[in-house]
Amino acid sequence: MADEMKCITLAARPEGAPKDSDFKLETRPVPEPSEGEVLVRVHYMSLDPYMRGRMDDAKSYAEPVPLGGIMEGGGAGEVIASNDPGFKPGDMAFGMFGWATHGVQPAKMLRKLPEGLPITTSLGVLGMPGFTGWYGLTEIGKPKKGETLVVAAATGPVGSMVGQIAKARGLRTVAIAGGADKCRLATEKFGFDAALDHRAYDDARSLRKALAEAAPDGIDIYFENVGGKVFEAVLPLMNRFGRIPVCGMIAGYNTGALGGTAGAGPDRFPVFWRTLLVKHLLAQGFIISNHFDRYGEFLNEVAPLVASGDIAYLEDIAEGIENAPAAFMGLLEGRNMGKQIVKLA
Amino acid sequence: MADEMKCITLAARPEGAPKDSDFKLETRPVPEPSEGEVLVRVHYMSLDPYMRGRMDDAKSYAEPVPLGGIMEGGGAGEVIASNDPGFKPGDMAFGMFGWATHGVQPAKMLRKLPEGLPITTSLGVLGMPGFTGWYGLTEIGKPKKGETLVVAAATGPVGSMVGQIAKARGLRTVAIAGGADKCRLATEKFGFDAALDHRAYDDARSLRKALAEAAPDGIDIYFENVGGKVFEAVLPLMNRFGRIPVCGMIAGYNTGALGGTAGAGPDRFPVFWRTLLVKHLLAQGFIISNHFDRYGEFLNEVAPLVASGDIAYLEDIAEGIENAPAAFMGLLEGRNMGKQIVKLA
Repeated sequence: MADEMKCITLAARPEGAPKDSDFKLETRPVPEPSEGEVLVRVHYMSLDPYMRGRMDDAKSYAEPVPLGGIMEGGGAGEVIASNDPGFKPGDMAFGMFGWATHGVQPAKMLRKLPEGLPITTSLGVLGMPGFTGWYGLTEIGKPKKGETLVVAAATGPVGSMVGQIAKARGLRTVAIAGGADKCRLATEKFGFDAALDHRAYDDARSLRKALAEAAPDGIDIYFENVGGKVFEAVLPLMNRFGRIPVCGMIAGYNTGALGGTAGAGPDRFPVFWRTLLVKHLLAQGFIISNHFDRYGEFLNEVAPLVASGDIAYLEDIAEGIENAPAAFMGLLEGRNMGKQIVKLA
Repeated sequence: MADEMKCITLAARPEGAPKDSDFKLETRPVPEPSEGEVLVRVHYMSLDPYMRGRMDDAKSYAEPVPLGGIMEGGGAGEVIASNDPGFKPGDMAFGMFGWATHGVQPAKMLRKLPEGLPITTSLGVLGMPGFTGWYGLTEIGKPKKGETLVVAAATGPVGSMVGQIAKARGLRTVAIAGGADKCRLATEKFGFDAALDHRAYDDARSLRKALAEAAPDGIDIYFENVGGKVFEAVLPLMNRFGRIPVCGMIAGYNTGALGGTAGAGPDRFPVFWRTLLVKHLLAQGFIISNHFDRYGEFLNEVAPLVASGDIAYLEDIAEGIENAPAAFMGLLEGRNMGKQIVKLA
């Protein structure tokens, strides 16, 4: 019935990896837009690692999703009612509608989608993940021709953007990905010079040995988005004056120990700190939502490259909101191939 | 006899804190300057924490002192022979002569001292330590009016420069120092808004509580030069978009565990990394010797302020090269008050 919508709510706060029972599929009335608001029927919904953080009750850079609340997330779809002169029914827009088939948002929180590109691109390659890769690489990584870049989760929407922009600027690019298929994808589709399957290495030391061969001149930029074993492998290979943009670390989201494997062990902080000092490294964290003033610049540069095919992208599209939890759990385990999206309509 | 000099050599590599028997006072022939070289009789010799690192055989940003070699260090004195047209006997110069009463260096490695300021200033407030503070604060810290800065070892030549430059730029400045005397010095001589005696707090948590009161608006810049407990106290108080210049950490020099207390304990790296991410922190290491292209700019800005008394400095001067090891061991334990210097002539 048209006045009802489906949504996924947070049923329980997960301990470690989320499971089915942490989510609940619900039917709710479609909300009505107030003055200045717009109602959108969501066609495609985005799933992203940061959402795992919102499921916890911990203090972070954003408020947690309340128990019983709709899971947070972005989506793109068609305006079906508008109380704002800037939008009319039929317009296509992106907004933070949550894991839901419909959503109301203030018009000023929506972004109209450009013509001529699939609307799914607003969730991945030209959305928050692509923008994250572009911003972190260019603003913090400051890539220079002839340098070497390493990025993990290299076939995801952040890593693949990082790799392609770096390659276009004349860097040697080394991908780290999970599994032979993703490694092949990294080199064949995304143009990485080399790709390493982190699952093929038991520990940081063996991964480091392979990395040292793939990056014979050392590593100038490590785009940090996974943490854990990869970071430990990379650190000793960093060149002097290297840069480490830190944009969120999927490896730690399920353990509560961002940036590292859980459990007892040596304190790795002194080694890191010493390396930072003696190699003049720069490490800088960033949350992309603080930098949307640069989004237009990103679109101007990258949208034409996506349209022309010079920047490739890959999407993994699940069908139906009821499958969103499973797709999300798969994403956290790296089972997706490319940007994880859920098709709703 | 004029053809002999005294020097201190490295007799043994220390385990932990250096002791008397790690050093040896020797008499050697005064070296002869070759073509392009200059012989200097050193009047004042500098003692600095970085020298502890040179006593170890570990890979670092500089070569270790060889066993039996003269301890490394800078000094200022009078040219007594020159085979270079740029220097003549009687000129006053700074160079890396080591812990020695005389030294030969290529003319291009020497810096002529400006007139009108005590030559000891070339070792501290206008030398490497002052330059380190100025560079790290301005280039990495990027201070903005109204922000809050914290620096430890605040009465030392690095920390006191950092505090005074920050204060002049309109920041609230909080000193951390060891002992009530140094805290008084920090506020009365160096103009810090507040000073905390880290010895008065048993652990990072209690120090943090005091810091939170001294820095009620949070901390925007933490100039890191000690590591350990202070860093742990500071980290949770950092404001979003905070900056952490990392210039070397005296707390760790004796333990081999730079940046932290030694021994077993929880792995603090994940907490640090998560904080870096969610608060958009920037941490950047630097070794000042890579930035001497900026030294002239530093002198132009700061030397007039030292001459006018707008920037205060404090020197702790030991007498005689035979007392250099004791003064150095005291420096590593924080027993000096101000820049540690040894008067040789």
